Amino acid sequence: MTESSDSATPHTESGALEDRAYREAVVDLLGAIAYGEISAFERLAEDAKLAPSLEDKLAIVGMACREFAHVELLRARLVEIGADPFAAMAPFTAALDLFHQHTAPADFYEGLVKAYVGDGLAADFYREIAAYLDPRTRDIVISSLADAGHSEFVVDRVQAAIAADHKLGGRLALWGRRLMGEALTQAQRVAAERDALSALLAGGVDRPALDLAAIGRMFARITEQHADRMSKLGLDA
Amino acid sequence: MTESSDSATPHTESGALEDRAYREAVVDLLGAIAYGEISAFERLAEDAKLAPSLEDKLAIVGMACREFAHVELLRARLVEIGADPFAAMAPFTAALDLFHQHTAPADFYEGLVKAYVGDGLAADFYREIAAYLDPRTRDIVISSLADAGHSEFVVDRVQAAIAADHKLGGRLALWGRRLMGEALTQAQRVAAERDALSALLAGGVDRPALDLAAIGRMFARITEQHADRMSKLGLDA
Repeated sequence: MTESSDSATPHTESGALEDRAYREAVVDLLGAIAYGEISAFERLAEDAKLAPSLEDKLAIVGMACREFAHVELLRARLVEIGADPFAAMAPFTAALDLFHQHTAPADFYEGLVKAYVGDGLAADFYREIAAYLDPRTRDIVISSLADAGHSEFVVDRVQAAIAADHKLGGRLALWGRRLMGEALTQAQRVAAERDALSALLAGGVDRPALDLAAIGRMFARITEQHADRMSKLGLDA
Repeated sequence: MTESSDSATPHTESGALEDRAYREAVVDLLGAIAYGEISAFERLAEDAKLAPSLEDKLAIVGMACREFAHVELLRARLVEIGADPFAAMAPFTAALDLFHQHTAPADFYEGLVKAYVGDGLAADFYREIAAYLDPRTRDIVISSLADAGHSEFVVDRVQAAIAADHKLGGRLALWGRRLMGEALTQAQRVAAERDALSALLAGGVDRPALDLAAIGRMFARITEQHADRMSKLGLDA
């Protein structure tokens, strides 16, 4: 989705990482995504316990392990650029843990919607940022966001459950809105605390800033993609 | 380890699965191992929460996902021989769930010892049985028992913890004995309930039975390997 970003000025790898502010932003970004995948694993492993059948449980655990496989990729890149992967993740554990505490699913279907909608939102957001990265880091970020097989399975199960119980549709639509709200709250918190990461979007001496209109368009794209996912599930956004 | 089994008369694949009792035993065996790997995954994913650092947590989750990857192999073989994988696992869920309920680790180190000692015991036992299988099923069983990277990590962490706290060594030695006792209790329960599986060891019309002396030697080998593992951890068996 890099082509959909406004005025992205990607870094070239050679030299880019010597720019201290840029390197700091990359370390933050890789650390945030890596911890996000770890907490996605943990959440899915918990949700697997709610699965109504052993077959559903295996599907969820399979997703969890595919998410986790991405961590190795991000960790290797952090080591490659001389960063400590665990120090890189540390600034993001509080926000991500809070997000998960505030959005603990009450049943199997809330868990499915969260996996699909939450990971979709995170992936859209990181893909937007990826447009500002050197090609090698960008490729790693994009690979780490590959769909872990959520879509088909989740859409199938949620649609069937709503067809069988219409009240569930109303509850899950509210749940989707709550997930979006919590995600924005935590994202703002991170943006306020991590200057380097925000500066990547806000531009720098050699890069034009993303103006307010461009940031607005970015959020419009993310919101639209969220609405698309909700509609695929058969839910009002 | 097939060479260490007494009087094993391996089946050839062609025809072997047409023997109804043999096929039933194979379905049981693959189902038991598959559910064992699923519950190993679940236990490790739980234990990961007890990890003292994010690095240890990642090591445990990595093991959990490697265990889980074996499930696909066993499931595919069950489907290949025309069995329903979930029906094949069903008879073993109670015994394995009970084993895990009775041996919930109180801390990170009990979890590590359980992963290493418990999976080692299960692998030794299934490898002994594998000697009685047709080559293709045997290969799948042996691959599914490959060490999920437990050994080095667990030995390293447990040895360091015992060196720092000698009382821990005494507690973990008792814990290892309890794991062995619970494993034997559940194995006997399964043997009593699953005639086809026991018949595989007890022989059949075209196969000599494993006599009592041979069964005794098999248990002696398993006990010896258990003692080896305990000693590698620095614990009395």
